[in-house]
Amino acid sequence: MKAKIYISLKESILDPQGKTVEHALSVLGFKGVKGVRVGKYMEVLLEPAPIDSAKKSVEAMCEKLLANTVIESYRYEIDPEG
Amino acid sequence: MKAKIYISLKESILDPQGKTVEHALSVLGFKGVKGVRVGKYMEVLLEPAPIDSAKKSVEAMCEKLLANTVIESYRYEIDPEG
Repeated sequence: MKAKIYISLKESILDPQGKTVEHALSVLGFKGVKGVRVGKYMEVLLEPAPIDSAKKSVEAMCEKLLANTVIESYRYEIDPEG
Repeated sequence: MKAKIYISLKESILDPQGKTVEHALSVLGFKGVKGVRVGKYMEVLLEPAPIDSAKKSVEAMCEKLLANTVIESYRYEIDPEG
């Protein structure tokens, strides 16, 4: 099974990398871009387990290692077939 | 409207960052992790536009700037309400 984890900076946190991408898009001629936020995307391959225990495990991974919860928020999906 | 873009290294490309995260998870005591791949997640805020032209635009952004299509693959979703 596979966990897909999305980590983004919280709304209130400045995102200079996103600003840089936004500027680059405008230089390349893309119109209508109002903002860019850059985050992380992780796929964690897990041994098959009951979905509830997989969720608990993934949440613990995010809290302890993957996300810095002071400035980042995370969400995840568990794909039992992945 | 908002485009959510997921960029991952292609399967055949080594991912040392993912390996490092995998090792760190095992050191922290997480069992049953068989692999980790680390990628990027971007949210691009767009002016309202027809969905087809938004898709074209986002694809062009990915091809030209956001993804390195030699080693990375991307997928995206357009959320008209985002």
